[in-house]
Amino acid sequence: MSRSQTNPKAEIDDHLANRWSPRAFDPRRPVERERLLSCIEAARWAPSCFGDEPWRFIVADRYSEDELDNWKNLLDCLTPKNRAWAQHAPVLIMACASTHFRQNDKPNRWAEFDTGQSVFALCIQATSLGLITHQMGGFDEDMARGHWGMPKEVEPMSIIALGYMGDDLVLDDGLREVENKPRTRRPMSSLIFADRWRTPYFRQED
Amino acid sequence: MSRSQTNPKAEIDDHLANRWSPRAFDPRRPVERERLLSCIEAARWAPSCFGDEPWRFIVADRYSEDELDNWKNLLDCLTPKNRAWAQHAPVLIMACASTHFRQNDKPNRWAEFDTGQSVFALCIQATSLGLITHQMGGFDEDMARGHWGMPKEVEPMSIIALGYMGDDLVLDDGLREVENKPRTRRPMSSLIFADRWRTPYFRQED
Repeated sequence: MSRSQTNPKAEIDDHLANRWSPRAFDPRRPVERERLLSCIEAARWAPSCFGDEPWRFIVADRYSEDELDNWKNLLDCLTPKNRAWAQHAPVLIMACASTHFRQNDKPNRWAEFDTGQSVFALCIQATSLGLITHQMGGFDEDMARGHWGMPKEVEPMSIIALGYMGDDLVLDDGLREVENKPRTRRPMSSLIFADRWRTPYFRQED
Repeated sequence: MSRSQTNPKAEIDDHLANRWSPRAFDPRRPVERERLLSCIEAARWAPSCFGDEPWRFIVADRYSEDELDNWKNLLDCLTPKNRAWAQHAPVLIMACASTHFRQNDKPNRWAEFDTGQSVFALCIQATSLGLITHQMGGFDEDMARGHWGMPKEVEPMSIIALGYMGDDLVLDDGLREVENKPRTRRPMSSLIFADRWRTPYFRQED
């Protein structure tokens, strides 16, 4: 499943190396209930500042009869471009950050950061179970806020498509091309610094 | 190593279940160079909005002679409470979020979120190698900005202590007590919602 160009000098864990964000979901294969629960359980165990656990999730499984309407509502929030392929994902999950600490109602500047950690735990758990995930930032926040009645201190961050990999023939030509490009990342020298900002930490170029 | 009270109905991947945030670092055991590189490599492969890769890291290994001063600078940014135990960590890493998109210089509202994903990848890679991590939000941001000459659009988020587990006798009595408490998390019903905010998704209480 992996198409990453990881550094051969630095091997990384399979689940981290194999995680990527495909668009070709199998529309006919539901996510088993226990597997969905495991993904959510993984999200719960992320670390957070002052143990606030600022992450919140809205979950909908279109294969569960009484969740179909909610799944459609999540799909409706997406941009048309995302909806084109995300309509095949059996499960949609919206990740939100609660931006004020529970203990004192002061702003939590780590709310989004910690929510990102929690979402990544969910994605890694999914990968470990043979599932795929694809996060989307392209959705209508106001529609989401209104629809689910979110308190104002909540920030919707990402809609996660969850399911099994399908045939890329479900994608149009443009998306299929994107889907089959190798994964790349910026060189370490532009991201990892030593004693001054932009001074590369690793001297040997990666 | 795990002390988590995870849900027996929802098994999660070992590296996710075993990751926690100890304070008892072994001050005499350095992190092997290849292992440090693997942790950083893992951080690179996180997903990000528009592939912006907004994460930046400042890395210092106190066992590397020419990095000792930088390691001390990272330590100096910490609150005294954090410094008390983090002084034993062989590697300190500051994670920062670059808050404007590279492609158009517009604000990136996912910068912190994506940086959180990247940091969590680093922590999971560390766990998979038998290392421990502990993130700290308690540090002097202005000192950090000034010291490393960060551009104003950069947000320092977390200082990560990285190393091997040591004897908890390096901790004072108060911290040792905290260290040995079981890990807990909030119930799913307060975090995972269905068709309305605060309506629990999983009906059976976890």
